[in-house]
Amino acid sequence: MRFVKEARVRFGHADPAGIAYYPRFFEWFHDAFESMFEAAFQQSYAEVLASSECGFPAVQAACEWRRPARFGDLVQIEVFISRLTERSATFEYRVKKEGALLATASVKVAGMHLSQHRPMAFPPNIRTVFERYVEEDRDHPDTSRLRGA
Amino acid sequence: MRFVKEARVRFGHADPAGIAYYPRFFEWFHDAFESMFEAAFQQSYAEVLASSECGFPAVQAACEWRRPARFGDLVQIEVFISRLTERSATFEYRVKKEGALLATASVKVAGMHLSQHRPMAFPPNIRTVFERYVEEDRDHPDTSRLRGA
Amino acid sequence: MRFVKEARVRFGHADPAGIAYYPRFFEWFHDAFESMFEAAFQQSYAEVLASSECGFPAVQAACEWRRPARFGDLVQIEVFISRLTERSATFEYRVKKEGALLATASVKVAGMHLSQHRPMAFPPNIRTVFERYVEEDRDHPDTSRLRGA
Amino acid sequence: MRFVKEARVRFGHADPAGIAYYPRFFEWFHDAFESMFEAAFQQSYAEVLASSECGFPAVQAACEWRRPARFGDLVQIEVFISRLTERSATFEYRVKKEGALLATASVKVAGMHLSQHRPMAFPPNIRTVFERYVEEDRDHPDTSRLRGA
Repeated sequence: MRFVKEARVRFGHADPAGIAYYPRFFEWFHDAFESMFEAAFQQSYAEVLASSECGFPAVQAACEWRRPARFGDLVQIEVFISRLTERSATFEYRVKKEGALLATASVKVAGMHLSQHRPMAFPPNIRTVFERYVEEDRDHPDTSRLRGA
Repeated sequence: MRFVKEARVRFGHADPAGIAYYPRFFEWFHDAFESMFEAAFQQSYAEVLASSECGFPAVQAACEWRRPARFGDLVQIEVFISRLTERSATFEYRVKKEGALLATASVKVAGMHLSQHRPMAFPPNIRTVFERYVEEDRDHPDTSRLRGA
Repeated sequence: MRFVKEARVRFGHADPAGIAYYPRFFEWFHDAFESMFEAAFQQSYAEVLASSECGFPAVQAACEWRRPARFGDLVQIEVFISRLTERSATFEYRVKKEGALLATASVKVAGMHLSQHRPMAFPPNIRTVFERYVEEDRDHPDTSRLRGA
Repeated sequence: MRFVKEARVRFGHADPAGIAYYPRFFEWFHDAFESMFEAAFQQSYAEVLASSECGFPAVQAACEWRRPARFGDLVQIEVFISRLTERSATFEYRVKKEGALLATASVKVAGMHLSQHRPMAFPPNIRTVFERYVEEDRDHPDTSRLRGA
């Protein structure tokens, strides 16, 4: 199952070339990530964090941009999980415009106890939700060419 | 050769856990990237773009966060190039605090003609500068664990 | 008539005190401003700018924060116009949570020709839309206490 | 006495018109504000907050933009205080390029106890620093034209 969040490329997201400035994609991913929690828990992401005492710091990320997102574009951000362990989850993001793939990203988050600042296993209620979004992923970001050959 | 840009984790960079929100790292990388141009060309990044008509959109990125950057931390962002071709360069970023590595990232940019919006080879003066920063890189972001095994 | 845009205080909007970092409010205002255009023109803000060649740079702004917006809060941003002239419009923003006023702001924008970078009167189709949102405003930001007395 | 912070208009600060997106000014103001603390206390803003338990939420702001700041511009942000009371301070910001005034702003902050979330008087060591920056201010933002007449 994929969660889908729609986003508009705003004036403040676009650079002097009229194209979305690449750090903004990660803000969109986090917005879609939080929206997925809201949809799944019927609570705000803030409430889920407060009740579980579990935070989700990013530990690894990869992104590939295939086509530019332009000022004014309406994009769909698909969210799912490609890998789930006791203490980590790799969230996948696919940014599409009219079905065409603009960007593909993976962001691995780890469970962290918010007050004790130590790693923690995902609480059962969170794990149960995450399991719903686990999906075999055939189109992940290709970062092999970051360092050639 | 590495270019080094110092940055302070500002109030607006930090999240409710007091830790730098991960999309901010990519803004720091771009700031360090632009500062490197200023240092190398003795012109603003904007002037280099205007005179060369060459832009540098990100096409791939990878980042690994090893230790959190906290509100108030003073960090050094090291910039160098791990791979250079006619039309692309992979910029490496190392975020350090008192010598300890907090984050390591690679961002591959491609040459793009700013008015014609097509790929272009880096102009010779830009290539010459990029060559100065090329370095064998032994500590690149490990994103192998993004997906299984 | 007021246009209303709903917004959630995201993780990346909140500071280490768990409260929305004040510059984020202006990003919400611009998002609500662009959304108002979309609702009124059935086009993206980008399309309205492109077809009219008219941009809307901010020339003056005032904001008063009465209650904090906290991480996780769901707020309503009301948009209307308190003053309209040939070449300028003062947009009003009211940020409310469950009916309680959190912040009140005014942002005056001027018509600017996008390619010629000179002041221009609002095109008739834009003026007609703006007129729909003009409203007597009884609760504007009080900035009298910014300076003594 | 004025504290001066230099800033470069970065690619990510500029909009599709090549001009600094107005919410970014408030981020620059906060950066200059934090830098002033560092210069005055020889500690990070984070350390001053932690040791004093006093935070500085914005309660009112006004800004007037007189000339655009363009991508690549190097600007000087002057910081001083136009009004100081037991529990509040109005910080003034002047953004200049080669001596020309681009923007002028006032941001009133109130003392807030960080753990108890209640108003508090500025601690003596902070007040002493603030007093150094108090200055009669002859060129404050004119927001009179936000509304009619």
